[in-house]
Amino acid sequence: MDFTTLFKAPETEGKEKHVPIIDILKNHGGKDETLVLVTVGKEVPHPNTVEHHIVWIELYGIKKETNQVIYLGRQDLAPTFTDPSAKFKVKLDDFKALGALAYCNIHGVWKNTKEL
Amino acid sequence: MDFTTLFKAPETEGKEKHVPIIDILKNHGGKDETLVLVTVGKEVPHPNTVEHHIVWIELYGIKKETNQVIYLGRQDLAPTFTDPSAKFKVKLDDFKALGALAYCNIHGVWKNTKEL
Amino acid sequence: MDFTTLFKAPETEGKEKHVPIIDILKNHGGKDETLVLVTVGKEVPHPNTVEHHIVWIELYGIKKETNQVIYLGRQDLAPTFTDPSAKFKVKLDDFKALGALAYCNIHGVWKNTKEL
Amino acid sequence: MDFTTLFKAPETEGKEKHVPIIDILKNHGGKDETLVLVTVGKEVPHPNTVEHHIVWIELYGIKKETNQVIYLGRQDLAPTFTDPSAKFKVKLDDFKALGALAYCNIHGVWKNTKEL
Repeated sequence: MDFTTLFKAPETEGKEKHVPIIDILKNHGGKDETLVLVTVGKEVPHPNTVEHHIVWIELYGIKKETNQVIYLGRQDLAPTFTDPSAKFKVKLDDFKALGALAYCNIHGVWKNTKEL
Repeated sequence: MDFTTLFKAPETEGKEKHVPIIDILKNHGGKDETLVLVTVGKEVPHPNTVEHHIVWIELYGIKKETNQVIYLGRQDLAPTFTDPSAKFKVKLDDFKALGALAYCNIHGVWKNTKEL
Repeated sequence: MDFTTLFKAPETEGKEKHVPIIDILKNHGGKDETLVLVTVGKEVPHPNTVEHHIVWIELYGIKKETNQVIYLGRQDLAPTFTDPSAKFKVKLDDFKALGALAYCNIHGVWKNTKEL
Repeated sequence: MDFTTLFKAPETEGKEKHVPIIDILKNHGGKDETLVLVTVGKEVPHPNTVEHHIVWIELYGIKKETNQVIYLGRQDLAPTFTDPSAKFKVKLDDFKALGALAYCNIHGVWKNTKEL
């Protein structure tokens, strides 16, 4: 058994939305910087209660030549107070893809990958 | 001894910049949402090498009536790949102040407070 | 205002127990290693429900000569499933004191310091 | 592409040891409690330098009936100061398996699963 096969993919998404959506904002704020925005519940907000909420969002980069997985960071969230979206200022040149994980305390780990 | 008294305040800042600066972005992106941006090295970028970098940035809220300290989240960073700034979508109504901590692997924990 | 002055010290402890207690276990398991155990609710267990629980425990070391604060790690916890105690395998030689923080989602940040 | 397929399994282990080994310590310390110990480099210690180290170790539980993945916690580590092993006090009754992830800043994410 490999427990990571239980991480849920976009195609298993139901009415509630859990998949972390990865958006890349170039030249954000008129500045020469790239922001990676990871959002859970982009179209339909996910519940954000003490009983049911997104606990954290993570971003990974996949290196171009080596396929090495680089942990780019995690944002912890606080139920009821912070909404599940995270922004990371990332240098993207080295990466061929980005991956995101998000954890819902009721519905487990959700994953998504965006090729660059 | 109280080790938290060794957390460093804005007035101990030297040439390198470590203090986490808290900015509040209202109606960000034309949407009715408030973003709290916490940046280390806003004016002068902090080094971002494996040997010397900001490891994480945290945001706290101070509740209006109770002075209770609420952890609003942490953003972990990845040396060389992600720059030390974090954005949190926060509901600010309950808070009278925000606090931020940032950790440099060489120069320790830095703190800042912004009254609302 | 300095929000870290709202972190709560052992002397403000009430009936419920929040202060992280730092214990040092030498030669743990007959092996030449030192474990630092940080426990919340050592005498009286803290509630561990979704509504009221310890979210994380952190350990810091204070360097002997420089008073530099070193982040030795954080353990995230999962309400109802994991009890609030964390063990860290630490090389203690460099440190004159250890500090711990613990966060309760209802009662805020608690702190403690142990001189070595 | 699914980036989590790049997480590395025990069978891809080379000379350096990265796979997080999950051990269950019952009645630890003569007390009626179960500790889950997750260790990287159990047989052969992993390097622990600023340039090359284990950044964090995570523990997950797989629920018996639902196969739901529950995040049981993460331990952040501090290069050179803390060795890559983490202990979690877990109530195991609900789980059919445990999963662990460990992240090496050079060699990526490593995974392991232990059926109960």
